[in-house]
Order: sequence, then structure tokens, then C-alpha cells
Amino acid sequence: MQKLDTIILQKPPVLRAWAAVGGKKESEGPLAECFDALQEDNHLGEESWERAESRLQQQALTLCLKKAQTTWEEVSLVLGGDLQCQCTATNYALRDIDVPFAGLYGACSTMAEGVGLAACLAGAAHTRNVMAVASSHFCTAERQYRTPLEYGGQRTPTSQWTATAAGAVLLSPAGRGPRVQAVTFGRIRDYEISDINNMGAAMAPAAASTILRHLEAMGTSPEDYDAIVTGDLAQVGSDLLLQLLEGEGLQVKNHRDCGLLLYDREHQRVKAGASGAGCSASVLCTHFLPGLAKGRYRRILFLSTGALMSQTTFLQGETIPGIAHAIELIGEDAE
Amino acid sequence: MQKLDTIILQKPPVLRAWAAVGGKKESEGPLAECFDALQEDNHLGEESWERAESRLQQQALTLCLKKAQTTWEEVSLVLGGDLQCQCTATNYALRDIDVPFAGLYGACSTMAEGVGLAACLAGAAHTRNVMAVASSHFCTAERQYRTPLEYGGQRTPTSQWTATAAGAVLLSPAGRGPRVQAVTFGRIRDYEISDINNMGAAMAPAAASTILRHLEAMGTSPEDYDAIVTGDLAQVGSDLLLQLLEGEGLQVKNHRDCGLLLYDREHQRVKAGASGAGCSASVLCTHFLPGLAKGRYRRILFLSTGALMSQTTFLQGETIPGIAHAIELIGEDAE
Repeated sequence: MQKLDTIILQKPPVLRAWAAVGGKKESEGPLAECFDALQEDNHLGEESWERAESRLQQQALTLCLKKAQTTWEEVSLVLGGDLQCQCTATNYALRDIDVPFAGLYGACSTMAEGVGLAACLAGAAHTRNVMAVASSHFCTAERQYRTPLEYGGQRTPTSQWTATAAGAVLLSPAGRGPRVQAVTFGRIRDYEISDINNMGAAMAPAAASTILRHLEAMGTSPEDYDAIVTGDLAQVGSDLLLQLLEGEGLQVKNHRDCGLLLYDREHQRVKAGASGAGCSASVLCTHFLPGLAKGRYRRILFLSTGALMSQTTFLQGETIPGIAHAIELIGEDAE
Repeated sequence: MQKLDTIILQKPPVLRAWAAVGGKKESEGPLAECFDALQEDNHLGEESWERAESRLQQQALTLCLKKAQTTWEEVSLVLGGDLQCQCTATNYALRDIDVPFAGLYGACSTMAEGVGLAACLAGAAHTRNVMAVASSHFCTAERQYRTPLEYGGQRTPTSQWTATAAGAVLLSPAGRGPRVQAVTFGRIRDYEISDINNMGAAMAPAAASTILRHLEAMGTSPEDYDAIVTGDLAQVGSDLLLQLLEGEGLQVKNHRDCGLLLYDREHQRVKAGASGAGCSASVLCTHFLPGLAKGRYRRILFLSTGALMSQTTFLQGETIPGIAHAIELIGEDAE
């Protein structure tokens, strides 16, 4: 059923399992002990960072499958993406796994996009199990979007640290676990930010737009949720989001941002916070889904936020369009 | 309902409208008069080819919407993608249209991937209208994947000409028009082709795999279809596909390839044929969907085929993974 922009799932599919894998910096952050696996070396034994990112995804997918106690034969489709040009982290990760696959590109919004589409498929009982995966790698992202690491560029205060992480989830039409109750796909918003070191500002308007549309469709207020979560707005973008929502008459006191949860900003020198498709993917799987499973949260509005530029459009002087997809999650025992 | 890898839609959604836009070379090819709009200048009045490709998508989407006699307010979601790094042709096309959007990356397999996902959404009555769009542009693709045009590189006999084209479709849960009966998402196949000028060979194994799995799940033979269509295998890939299928005991006499339909190979100097995400998207909308609507075809298995490498993985010495997604289309009056 669709109400305005929001797809309300009559038979909410279940998140049966999830897994997150992180790199070295993630192993030193506040969520370290919640990861399913952590890497001491961001090369993961590979010759290139690009291949290392594929390994992160494979680990996340394999661990998730294991936690769901199922096999690849029981997976109908994997939906996944990453930040590399032509999404090669995902393509090469899935090359080594013999499973139906559909590639996504949503930049850092990929995880909510993937879970949202997976929920629509599993919620229609078209399929058996559907998985969603997203990743990012600090080293592949920096040299692709900004400058090679060897350049040693100064980081601006608005800049964010791309997570070296992957998260994967498995959804089923039925079973036990948190459920996806509704999905709101994003509309692109571009407030003419052109600073490639200020992703938070570029993405905040899209997050505000999606939150407003979701609440309107569901007839809910922010306080109906235990948390309204954004993907990787970090400090700059989070402040802007709250301002934008306040401008629309909405006081949000329970906002959380994955970009502010993954690292300890004070001690880990990440400037405004974390970013990357792996940021919201891993924080969903290390913090929010376990919280829903254990009853610490009962109802969450979870958004992943993406900045949709490329190095080419940046050099051509384009501004940065943002997008944010939302999924409404409820605990197993919530009504 | 899912049978093996194939999603069989209990309520097959309807392709209510479609539109295709092409560039200069397409305007000189055998399908010219079937396009909804043709461009004499591949710049489309823009300063960059990248922006020009966004315009192609916007035109295809807008024309499709007009032909469906509906408005953006009635569109629940647009699923779309292209070949540019970070899918910017699509992102910037959709920036100017205020509609929910989910980005895909499937390289040249994008159109069947998008129609397949759209069919699952519309077939579940989760949504009102869902659109799928895909594009490519010869000039954006050449400089990104191979060499800048100014370099004037010789083309090898196995090379294909990237279509400057976009195609868009609109699906609804009900109404009149051809229907999507079943969807088979692809599994990645890599036969270790590493020649970036031989995409057809890289994609043929994936096409063979998807066709075999679809026929097995549906319990059908090639002759049950009026045509088994592939996206852009062109001459080299088409020959290999038929060989691979023959090796599996399958004689396919009704194979058609969009890469061999879009141009006149003899007179248009396109070497092995056409390619690009816009190739299968535009040939679907100029030839196969009109054929289904007019009763020239009753049942078609339509695949888009994609090569999932990037310039980075190519330079890192990786081989080229291929993928192929299939949609089974039936005419309005077919059983």
C-alpha cells in the first residue's frame, strides 16, 4: 500500500540476521566490540585497496548468512553497492559468490536503499531470503573523490572520515527478528553546495525532506520513535538537519547520526565525523538492529544519506545533489 | 512466487508506456523512425557530454510520462542508472525531477534490472506507477572506459559502438499493455576475458547462464518464445552465446540481439555492433514493446547484459565479470 511517498508493507518482512565488518580505525572506536569482525590491516591481505573492499563485503555477507543459519541456495537475491566507480567493490565481491545479484548506486545512501528494496521484495513474498549489503573503504574513497593519500592533503573541519566497513542484512517474508514496516525512497535535493569536503551540508536537505514526507505519510511525530537516525551527516550536517526541520516547525530531540556514533571524534581525529556507504551499513548492524532485537529500541526511523556527485561532475563545476532513503524499523515484539 | 531463481509474478504488472530517445548515429540506423525523439547534435545544447546524457534521460522519462497520460505525482519511484562513474547521468537527470528515485548500477544490464525490480514492486501493488530508465552516451563512455575521443584510437573488430540513447518505461499494477510475467536476476559469470574491447565475449557466459536458469524455472523451451533477446552481445558475443547454449544441448533459432538491431553494421562502421546501457533500453522501447503491443510478438524473453569492470580494475589487471538479467514479456492478449 502506498500513502503519499511511503510504501507501507502489509506483511512486514523480518530482518533475520545481520553482520558488520570494520577496519583498523573502526576497531579503535566506540562500537568496536559490536562488530562481527575487525581487521588490523586495511589491505586484508590483498594487493589493492579496491580488492580489500570486496573482501570486506564478502566477509559481511558470509557472516550474515552464517548467523541466519542458511545457505546461498536459499538466497533469492543480493542487492548491494559501494562508492567505487562502476561499483566494483560489490561486483567483484559478488563474482566469487554464486547468487542472483542486482547492483545499486546510491553513494552513502546505499544501505537504506538496499534494505528498502529488499523489504518490498520480501514483503511481497515474491522471494525467499533477500540480502542487502553496502561498503566503503577510506583508501579507495579518498583517492577517487579527493586526492591520493600519498598527497597528504590537510583535512578541513567540515570533512568526514570514510568508514572502512561493510554491513549486510538478510530479510525473510516471515520469522523472528526486527521488521521493516515502511519505506520512503528519497527525492534528490540540491542546495548548491559545491565543497567536496562538506558532504554533510550537501546531504542534510535530502534527509530533512525524506523525514518530513515519511512522518506525514505515517501520521507520526518524531517522539513516536525511539530514534530518528541519519546515515552520515556528521556534526555539520546534523546541525543543519535540525535547523531545517525546526524551520518546518519540527523539534527533533531524538536524532542520532551514524557518522557521530562510529568514531570518537575527540580522540580519533575524524573532523566532522564518519561517512561512507559502510558507515550507516555498519552502524545499523552493530548498534540499531541489535538494539531492536534486545528491546532497547522499539521503533526507529532509519535513513541512509548520499551525496551523488563524481570527480568528473566536481571538476565540471556541478553542485552536489543529495538523497536520503528511509526505512521504518520495529522491534520483534512491538505492535 | 519463486521457482528456483525465477520470480513469477502472480499479478503481472503492465507496461503502460515507454519512450526512447537517440542521438545522431541512431538517427541514421534501421530503427530511426521508431524513436520518440532523435538528436542531430550529441551535445543536446549542453557544455559537456555528461550533461547531454542527463538530458537524454530526462527526455525519455518525460516523453514516457506523457504517453502514459499521467503526472510525476502519480509516479511512486523511478529506478535508473547509466555507465558514468557514480551514475551521474541519472543522478543529475533526476535532480531536476521531483520524484522518489533509487539508483542502480548494472552497467549495460541496467534496463532489464530496472524493469525487473519495477515489476516486482508494481506486481506487489506496493506502489502506483514505477518507472525504469537507462542511458548511455558514446562520448562519455569512450573517454571513461577506453581513450579520449581526441586520441583517435583504432577500433578493433571485436569492439562495439556505445549507443547514444535512453529508454524509459512506466509500469502499473493494472491497465492495458504488455505485461512482465517473470523476472530472473543474473548471477555473475567471469570467463576471464580481460580485453576491454571485447565486451561481447565477457557478457555471453552470463547471458547463457540466465537463459538456462529462466527456461528451467519456467519449464519452457526456446521455441515457446517468439524471440530470445539479449542486450548488447553484438556479433562476437551472440556467436559465443549460441555456442555456449549448444554446448548445453540447446538449439536457439530465435535469438535476437539489440546490439545487432540498432545500427546497420555494414554501412555504419560499428565493428561488432552496438553496446551501452542505452542500447537494450532503446531497442526494448523502439522495437520489442511496440511489437508486443501490436501483436507482432506474443511472448519474449528479454535480457540486458552488462560487463561489470571499471577503468581502475582494468588497469589493476582484473578480468571482466559479466551479468545478465531477464524479464519475460507477454503481449496484452496473450494467455
